[in-house]
Amino acid sequence: MKQGKFITLEGIDGAGKSTQLAWIVELLQDAGKPVVVTREPGGTTLGEQLRALLLNKTMIMHAETEALLMFAARREHLDKVILPALTQGQWVISDRFTDASFAYQSGGRGLDSGKLAILEHWVQGDLQPDLTLYFDVPVEVGQQRVYQSKSKDRFEKEQADFFQRVRAAYQDRAKQFPERIRIIDSSRSLADVNAAVEQTLQPLLSHE
Amino acid sequence: MKQGKFITLEGIDGAGKSTQLAWIVELLQDAGKPVVVTREPGGTTLGEQLRALLLNKTMIMHAETEALLMFAARREHLDKVILPALTQGQWVISDRFTDASFAYQSGGRGLDSGKLAILEHWVQGDLQPDLTLYFDVPVEVGQQRVYQSKSKDRFEKEQADFFQRVRAAYQDRAKQFPERIRIIDSSRSLADVNAAVEQTLQPLLSHE
Ligand SMILES: Nc1ncnc2c1ncn2[C@@H]1O[C@H](COP(=O)(O)OP(=O)(O)OP(=O)(O)O)[C@@H](O)[C@H]1O
Ligand SMILES: Nc1ncnc2c1ncn2[C@@H]1O[C@H](COP(=O)(O)OP(=O)(O)OP(=O)(O)O)[C@@H](O)[C@H]1O
Ligand SMILES: [Mg+2]
Ligand SMILES: [Mg+2]
Repeated sequence: MKQGKFITLEGIDGAGKSTQLAWIVELLQDAGKPVVVTREPGGTTLGEQLRALLLNKTMIMHAETEALLMFAARREHLDKVILPALTQGQWVISDRFTDASFAYQSGGRGLDSGKLAILEHWVQGDLQPDLTLYFDVPVEVGQQRVYQSKSKDRFEKEQADFFQRVRAAYQDRAKQFPERIRIIDSSRSLADVNAAVEQTLQPLLSHE
Repeated sequence: MKQGKFITLEGIDGAGKSTQLAWIVELLQDAGKPVVVTREPGGTTLGEQLRALLLNKTMIMHAETEALLMFAARREHLDKVILPALTQGQWVISDRFTDASFAYQSGGRGLDSGKLAILEHWVQGDLQPDLTLYFDVPVEVGQQRVYQSKSKDRFEKEQADFFQRVRAAYQDRAKQFPERIRIIDSSRSLADVNAAVEQTLQPLLSHE
């Protein structure tokens, strides 16, 4: 019996997911919702160990291995964190979820999206987020925002054309699931993005 | 272009896989075959790290997570070790392969074997070992052989009924693929098992 809502945040590196996550938590708490915040890959003890393998920039792996590990971490994440919280009536906000697999492993790495859909169904059955906020920014904007100080992980060290393909795959997917995935133009000012997020969440909050 | 032969060894813990592996290597070398020896889960840098997670007895994970990790390690193993070696004309002997997933994750843990077959096809396409030696022993015999000194990993600490189910699943699978999987009664003396292995390998060696 799922009672809470499941919201996922998507977008390329530097799109503003983590920044908006804090804002969404505030909005939900103001509305009196109990909130669980999590992320992918990760979110569980095992998942964080898989995240370390996946992001380790010296690790070499086949794109299909990468996809299987992402879905292994996701299976655990659903079992240990997401489903129990939803069942208890909590709202779960995840910084990335399955759309990121389609964007990075299919768009970025070139895996067949039909093959990914098999894993999606294997792991999730019919479960989908209630709402996905896709923060869309041009690759240059995201990269400028994020790569000033920190050192790059295995994904971040990819070239701009990789992220162009990731962004295009995110946009495709948003077109494919317009009811679930809302596109937020995230190249705007923080205040404008905050306002767009608030407006997008409103129906979900007032429905309750 | 696959040129070498791919041989896998299966059986519950203590069945005699590692012991017979050494004997098989000797037989193949006597026949002038270049041999690559490997194991699952493992066989690659990433795979051995996944093996450590999978066997760590303090690690808790969903049975489906376990299956996805096994197949992730296998995808990497095929890409980095098995397929390159076969293409170069080497013979590959692997201590466990996909039949072990059906035995342990389906038989032992109770996952639906149809669901595992989806992952098998996702990762392997139509690739199957040329020959699988299934070393069959009663659970008590295997356990007595192996659990005298060493400390148990996450699988080994399961109870006898778990291994009964694993053995039954191995036997089922051997019945399902009688051409590929040969059952070796491994409760016999070492000399008898050696002789049975030699006899079973003979057609493959003389075919060349
Ligand atoms: N609308 C915005 N305008 C300007 N700067 C922004 C905006 N949103 C976020 N930033 C800044 O951009 C940087 C990246 O933002 P954030 O960490 O939220 O992105 P992210 O999508 O979580 O990236 P990553 O995928 O790398 O975690 C931060 O320094 C943040 O303060
Ligand atoms: N036919 C046999 N008769 C008696 N003892 C045997 C026989 N075959 C193997 N053994 C002994 O049983 C023990 C377990 O054998 P082995 O390590 O080859 O099993 P295994 O299938 O590789 O087990 P594991 O799955 O735990 O690696 C070893 O001490 C080995 O010497
Ligand atoms: Mg972030
Ligand atoms: Mg062994």
